[in-house]
Order: sequence, then C-alpha cells, then structure tokens
Amino acid sequence: MTILRPIILLAIITFVKPTRALWPLPNQLSTGSTLIKLADDFDITLEAINSAPQDLVDAVARTKDFIANDKLQRLVVGRGSSDSEGLASAPSVPILALSMDSGFTDSQARSLSEESMDVLENRVEAYSLIIPADGSQAELKANSTLGLFRGLTTFSQLWYDLDGTTYSVEGPIEIKDEPAYPYRGLMLDTARNFFPVSDIKRTLDAMSWVKINTFHWHIVDSQSFPLQVPDFPELASAGAYSSSMMYTPEDVKDIVDYAAARGIDVLPEIDTPGHTMIISKAFPEHIACAEAKPWASFANEPPAGQLRLASVSTMNFTQSLFTSVSSMFPGKFFSSGGDELNTNCYDQDPETQAELTASGKTLEEALDTFTQVTHGALHENGKTAVVWEEMVLEHNVTLSNDTVVMVWISSEHAASVAQAGFRFVHAPSDFFYLDCGAGEWIGADPEGNSWCDPFKTWQKSYTFDPTANLTENEKELVLGGEQLLWTEQSHPSNLDPIVWPRAASSAEVFWTGPGGDVSTALPRLHDIAFRMNQRGIGAIALQPLYCALRPGVCDLDS
Amino acid sequence: MTILRPIILLAIITFVKPTRALWPLPNQLSTGSTLIKLADDFDITLEAINSAPQDLVDAVARTKDFIANDKLQRLVVGRGSSDSEGLASAPSVPILALSMDSGFTDSQARSLSEESMDVLENRVEAYSLIIPADGSQAELKANSTLGLFRGLTTFSQLWYDLDGTTYSVEGPIEIKDEPAYPYRGLMLDTARNFFPVSDIKRTLDAMSWVKINTFHWHIVDSQSFPLQVPDFPELASAGAYSSSMMYTPEDVKDIVDYAAARGIDVLPEIDTPGHTMIISKAFPEHIACAEAKPWASFANEPPAGQLRLASVSTMNFTQSLFTSVSSMFPGKFFSSGGDELNTNCYDQDPETQAELTASGKTLEEALDTFTQVTHGALHENGKTAVVWEEMVLEHNVTLSNDTVVMVWISSEHAASVAQAGFRFVHAPSDFFYLDCGAGEWIGADPEGNSWCDPFKTWQKSYTFDPTANLTENEKELVLGGEQLLWTEQSHPSNLDPIVWPRAASSAEVFWTGPGGDVSTALPRLHDIAFRMNQRGIGAIALQPLYCALRPGVCDLDS
Repeated sequence: MTILRPIILLAIITFVKPTRALWPLPNQLSTGSTLIKLADDFDITLEAINSAPQDLVDAVARTKDFIANDKLQRLVVGRGSSDSEGLASAPSVPILALSMDSGFTDSQARSLSEESMDVLENRVEAYSLIIPADGSQAELKANSTLGLFRGLTTFSQLWYDLDGTTYSVEGPIEIKDEPAYPYRGLMLDTARNFFPVSDIKRTLDAMSWVKINTFHWHIVDSQSFPLQVPDFPELASAGAYSSSMMYTPEDVKDIVDYAAARGIDVLPEIDTPGHTMIISKAFPEHIACAEAKPWASFANEPPAGQLRLASVSTMNFTQSLFTSVSSMFPGKFFSSGGDELNTNCYDQDPETQAELTASGKTLEEALDTFTQVTHGALHENGKTAVVWEEMVLEHNVTLSNDTVVMVWISSEHAASVAQAGFRFVHAPSDFFYLDCGAGEWIGADPEGNSWCDPFKTWQKSYTFDPTANLTENEKELVLGGEQLLWTEQSHPSNLDPIVWPRAASSAEVFWTGPGGDVSTALPRLHDIAFRMNQRGIGAIALQPLYCALRPGVCDLDS
Repeated sequence: MTILRPIILLAIITFVKPTRALWPLPNQLSTGSTLIKLADDFDITLEAINSAPQDLVDAVARTKDFIANDKLQRLVVGRGSSDSEGLASAPSVPILALSMDSGFTDSQARSLSEESMDVLENRVEAYSLIIPADGSQAELKANSTLGLFRGLTTFSQLWYDLDGTTYSVEGPIEIKDEPAYPYRGLMLDTARNFFPVSDIKRTLDAMSWVKINTFHWHIVDSQSFPLQVPDFPELASAGAYSSSMMYTPEDVKDIVDYAAARGIDVLPEIDTPGHTMIISKAFPEHIACAEAKPWASFANEPPAGQLRLASVSTMNFTQSLFTSVSSMFPGKFFSSGGDELNTNCYDQDPETQAELTASGKTLEEALDTFTQVTHGALHENGKTAVVWEEMVLEHNVTLSNDTVVMVWISSEHAASVAQAGFRFVHAPSDFFYLDCGAGEWIGADPEGNSWCDPFKTWQKSYTFDPTANLTENEKELVLGGEQLLWTEQSHPSNLDPIVWPRAASSAEVFWTGPGGDVSTALPRLHDIAFRMNQRGIGAIALQPLYCALRPGVCDLDS
C-alpha cells in the first residue's frame, strides 16, 4: 500500500486563490476566472463506460439532482447578484462525459458497491476532471468506478445558483485528485442512544459528499443491543431499548448497500470483552459483574458488565456471535473492540476466578486465548480484525500482523502503536471526539464537565498531523483517521449539528493531506456546510452569516 | 412587588417521592399512589368562567391536544407495561373544570394575552389543581386567566400513555403553585444568524411548557438588522442578511400575539450605542468606526461600529428609532442594551471628538445625555428601560429608578448591581450562556476555544443561587433570571438541541426557587425533554436511554 503525500503546489494554489466550492480540496487543482455555466439541457453521459454498473448510473442521476436542486448562492456579499451580467454571455458546458482512463484494462467496470467494499489496498479513488471554458464538454476520467464516483462528488460541489442559472466563476477548471490516506472514517455509537435507519442513511449521504469512505458502526454496548443477529435473536429482543429500536438483518443490508452505493464501507464493531453488560439480559451466564455496584469499581461508565473471557462456553458463544454478525456485513474489516477492560470485575467474579484456577492461566493469558479464539472466527469469515489501542498497548495479546489498531486515548499513543508494528487509524479523543465538551452525563455530579473537555473544534481536528512523532517507516502504518460520535448525550435531535460540518475537517486532513491553513479552509468549510443545509443536513453555522459572506473579515488578526 | 419564597415542604416531598412528570416542580405538591386515568370522553370545561376569553378557550383546546397526542410512555423499564392490569379498574377522571377562585372579584376574566403583557408586578400566576382518585372531576382554580393557563400547563404534564390509555400512577394529586420570581426568561439573538418566525414560535411553545414568561429578543446587532421598523425601512433593507431574512411588522405582531397567548411577554432589545455597525449601511452618518480594522481595537467582536452618541442628530435618530420600535411591541419592557462600549472607537472618530469639543462634554457625560434622551423616548412610550450591567457598573449614567439591569458578565456582579439599588435579572455568562463551550468562531485561531468555556451544563445552571451574597433588602431587587443564546454558532439547525432541555433548568430555579437537587431533578428533566420530543421540539438526550429509564443508576455514586 502506498500512502500518497500531499503536493506542495496545493498550498500555493489555495493561498493565492481559495476555491471555496470544494471540500476536501483536490490534490491538484488549477482554476481560471472565467464565468462558465451549465447548459439548460446539461447532461452527464456514461456512453464511454462499457456496461456501466447500475450503481454508477444511479450516482450520476443523484449528481444531476444535486446540481439541479442545490440552489446554493455564492457566499459573498450580494450572493452573486453581480455575476448576472457576465452570465448572459458565459460559455455553457453541455455535457460531463465519464470515461475510463486509457490505462484501465478491465473489459467491464466493476460496480461502485463492489469497489467500495474491497480490501483497502485495492481501492482506487483517483480521478481527473477537466471543465473547459470554451463551451466544449467536461471530462471525468478514472481507472475505477470508485474514482468516477469521487469525481462526480467533486463536480457537484463546483456550482452555484443565481436565478436558476447554474454556474462557476472559476473556469476553466482542471483537477487531478487522489486521497492522501486510504481510510477516512466516521464512527457512530448506536448503543447509548438509538438512531433510526433514516438518520444513518442521512449521515452516510453527508459522509459521501466529503469523501469519507468508512462508516465505523459501534452497534452495541453495555446499554443496549439493537442488532438482530440471525443466530442470536435473544440479544436484541432482550437487549434493544424497544422493539422499534432494533436493526433487523434487512435494515443492516439496507444500510450496507446504501453506504456501498456511496463509496462507503461499513466497519461493524461488536465490542468485547468489555462493554457487554446487555448480553446478560439474554445470556446471564456469559457476563461477569453485570450491573454491579458501585459501577465505578467495575467499569468506566455505567452499567458494568464484561464477557467471562476465561470461560470456554463464553468463548464459543462469542465466536458464534462474531460468525453470525460477520455474515451480515460484506466488508472486510470487523472490530472486536477490546477497550477499557476492568480487572476488578474479573477479580470479583467467582466464575472467572474458578475458570482461571482450573486452567492455571492468568487473566492476561486468558485474554490472549479469548482474543485468539474470537479473532480466529473473524479470520475464518474472511475478516481483518480491528481493535482499540489497549489490545496492543495495555495487554499481552497475540494479534495477527494485519490487525488494525484504533488509537483513541491520546494522539500521543500513535507512536507506540506504530512501534509495535501495527497498521492503525487515528481516532484520538484529544482531536477527534465529537462528543467532548458538552457537559457531564453521569448523574449527581453538579460541578462535572465532560471527561474529555474541551469541545474539539473543527480547527483542532483540522490541524491534526497524522505523522507526528513517527519515523519514515512508521508513517507507512497510518491508514488514515476518523472522527467519532459517542452518544451518551446525542440522539436523533442533535446528530446533524454535533457532527456537521466538524467531521468534514478530518475528511480533508486524510484526503488532501495535513498542513491545511484554517484561514483559507474556513470559507470552503462554510461552503460545504451551506451546501449540506441545501441538501437537508442540519450542519451548524460556524460564524455569523456576516462573517461567512466576508472571508477573512472575522479573523483574529483582521 | 412581593418575591415569594419556595416552601421547605417541597424539598421533603420531592426527596421522598419524586414526581417525574412535572417541570418546573410546583410550589406545593402532594401525590398518592393510585392509578388514575382520563375518561375516554375526558373534557376540560370553562363553564364557570364568566365570558371566557378566546385565548383561554384556545389554550384549553391545545391542552386537550397535548393530552391526546403526547403519547409519552413512562420513563421506567418496561415503559409502564406493568400498569396495564391496574388500569382496567382504575378510576377515570371525567372532567377538568376551570374556575376562578372565590376571592376573584372581576366580573369578567381578562384575556390571557392582556395579563401576559401586563407590568410584571401585576401578573398573577398562582393556581391550584386537585385531581381526585375517586372518579370525580378535577378542579383547576386561579385568580387570573394567566394562573389558569399555568395550571393547564401543569395538568398536561401529568399524563402518560399506555396503549391509548392516558393515565397517572400518582393519584390523587393536589397542587398549590405560584412562582418564586416574576421574571423567567429566555434570550435569543436573531442578528448574528437569522431565525425564521417558525423557529421562534416553536421556541415560544417550549418556553411556555416550562412556564418561562419572557422572550428577551435581541433582535439586531452589528452583523444584521432583520427588523423592518415602520419609520426606518432602510435599516432592514440595507441591513438584513436578505429580503427573506427580515421580520416584518406583521411577523412581529404574529410573534408577540403568539407569545402572549402562551403566557409570554416579549422584551425587545435594540442594543445601543454599541453593537450597531449595521445601521451604517443605511445611515453612515450615525456610526463611528464602522467596520474599522483591526476590529479588536474597536469592538469585542467583528464588525466594529457604534452610534455617534455625542451627536444630536444621532440622538434624535435613536430616539425616533426607539419610538418606532416601541410601537411594534405592546409589552412594557424595552432594552436599550448598553453593553461593551468601546472607548477607542470614539477616541479615533473625528466627528465624535468634534462634538465633544463643541459641547465641552467628556465621553461619559455625552453617554449620560444620550442615555437620558433615548430612555426618555422609552418612557414617553410607556416603556420601562432595561440595560446591560455596564450601564450601572462601568459608566456614570443617570438611570431612572425603575430601570431593570441585566447582569451578564459574571454572577459575582449581581451584588454590585443590587448595591446600586436597581432591580435586576440574572443572566450571567458563567451560569446561563447557552453558547459557551462550542469552540472559537473567530477565524484564524486554530487553538482557540469559546471565550466563556466551559459549556454551561444544565447542572450548573440548575444549581444557581439567585440570592447569593445579597442582603435581605437586596434580595427584593431580584426579578428573576434567564438563559441566553447568542448565535454566532447557531442557526435553525441547532436551535432546539442547544437550548433544550437546558433552558428548562433556570425555569425551575426561578419558578420553584433555588436549592433543587440535581439527582432528583434529572428524572423529571428527562421527562420534560422526552415530552418536548413528542411535541416536536428537538431536545437532546441528557443520558443514554438505559440511564433515563433507571433513575439514579447512572449517578456518580451509584
């Protein structure tokens, strides 16, 4: 796998001439200053694609819908009204023609969905886009269906509306683009509070618009088990918040298909052996310290409860659970969790102590066995295991070399994970946790604030450096990164505003590469936030509209 | 004016038996443990009210709608399903009968709207409510239409739904209730970002459900002037963000009427002499340092710009502006602002310096004249002036004795305002600012956080003490308090989640009185948040649903 480096040229171009319409910023971009508009009968053609896959055809239709319906006015004083005169005589782009690069040898394009769920190192997201300013057709080329899809996404961000005319002030436009990192994710926790399928789909839409390609789905946790697992229906019937707060296998397929058709792979997480109290509602025999009090002695948050990792029966159960859940998700990654294991829970659990005594194992040795057995089930099902950082940094666990590690406790832990030789994803709480800073949710704590105060601003996440403190070799281990929403204090009513546009910041860090400047980024971030609003996403205002219409005027030093 | 004290009995009752359905908690409450339900043909009757005013009739209709449509299940494990058996034989309440207390001498009830906008000291919000557990009719009595309305609000919070049956588990219920403080507000800034009338009305609905009685409307500011003032149409046409981001006189009347019909008075604010840059777009002659740079030398936030307070012409303009705006708002309070005056702006303004030299006045003397002249216009229009604390604590300005002061910079400044002898409203940023803790909105400040970090949790605002550091006499000056939303980082997409249910916390502090316990409050706050969700308000989740269904289980010491 090659990690592509952002090109220096980029910074120069953006400094001289911020192209406000695009997020994430393409890897190579050159723009002019000619007004160009889309023809009244503008069309996107797939004629050059041999048997264009249906999901690409659908993506083209959605792109045309966005272009027709975004109706986003330019974010400048006057909202573009001064463009009116020039537009009368501006050249019209008649067609965007999609084609495969000449180097592309497949006789038939693969489907977008297939490519979206392929192993990470096989995904090709590069594309090139040329929009002339002379009235000739625009051209989008790629070596993959996924690349064409990314190009369509970029194309749909280029256009503004003035009285029904769809136009850009920056023709001609030439873009060559590919991501700096292959993994760009967003994590959603659907266990602390439940989110209907419609909320997840809306989030997937917004993710795809900023080229996020992984939906890390923390499906279940100690608080609830909303997943209907085919072989274990008791888990959801006893553990979901209600019969209407469940994801059926059909819901999961719906979500997975919807994501894949938008260039997004779903990475499911069944957190083990901690964060599993709710399993006790259906299978009490598998859970130690279920709802034990005081919870703070048994878990990092209420309710306590962990899988009896030393029990052969529990290992078998977990193995079967992983196998059954694996069958629901066609993607290659599967997270077994592994965070926040509480030792006291097992010390106080007679069953676990008896198992340890009988087997002659320490708790760490039992955890090693548990992990190998349960990860074995993942490997048998063709999955690559994903774990939270403690599995590498805090425990002596044998992990296969291809295991992917999520760094979450601190960005400073990335180097240690790299030193252990594992590929990893940046998900550090000090940069990327979207829930921080919204106060204490634990009860009876009048002076409490969130454990990870302060709020992680978009500026904070945007200035993240993925290769800080890494050697050249270790840099190759960075797969990318993701922002995360833990939902102790979120449910559908604040999903959009807590996520957008903030989560776009890491999307640009890991697509365009790090080093972007917050001053030139802000107008573009406004732009994508306003475009999201036009498309039905409740992204928040980052500034007063006065400032959004006057780039730089509300800067600290302005 | 009498400030009523919360009754000690209250704390005892709530500790023994939290009544989760009610927010704010009534002043006196006694409940049983008998299941009672509303009859299938349950009705609310006004027969005993002599010529019941139409807005009370409408409020009754809305109350019946809420009761029929809330469909809120109890927030307990099982969501009340275990109540099913007992409900079959539970007594049914056939009627809620409204009547005036015998001590009430008016031959005809005044309208709810009239009473809602009356001077603060004339408003009577007390009511009593009795719901027997023997199948006889419930009785709601008050000495005022406003009191009846408050009682209806309480009544509508008492009921849960199970399979279409509307019921309570706590019959019989007896309530005698009146507010601890007469002023309970919520402030919304519609200048940094614009909010359509529909958002304001939805907010007024939610406010009324927790008995907030003042909508403090910070209508305009330096960023935009969305108010169409009859005598000064240029202000909005040049200063609103767009022609669709304006409040017409009809919109204002719509909002004022809607509020009054819900027990809410509208307190308009035209902030002067600072926070007025936008006036320069229509009347450049009246504004000093308009959009001067660097803004930080001329204002606390961009853009800079202040009324030329030493100019007679500008004073006349402001006087006329206040008179014209006064005509749009029937309520008695009117805020002239007065916060964050920047001296350097005037020092650098040749016109102001020339005026000061000509008149021989210092800047402070000119401010005094400006204030007396502009407040004079308010008095002539029957208004009571409201000002931010600086007008008392930082300037030598002559204010009439009835002026109401908003304490905002710090809760510790309340005592100083009280020492100056003015009535005041608690609006301190360190407890009640809803926007704090959401990051820096000023551009080009990658490490910045919000100036008033951290986020003000509901627990923080709930534990506010309105009489801290006040002498017995000074306590009489406390009118109440309000939570505030400044909207640099808010627009319609995050209005509900940033406000609710947090803003309910001060509503209880100033209705029920301070000293409430966060542990017993939390289940009730969940309840009102869930009820708001059922009524279409995007209140957020304060905890995982697991915790919301299990009061106390997620407490710090549980």
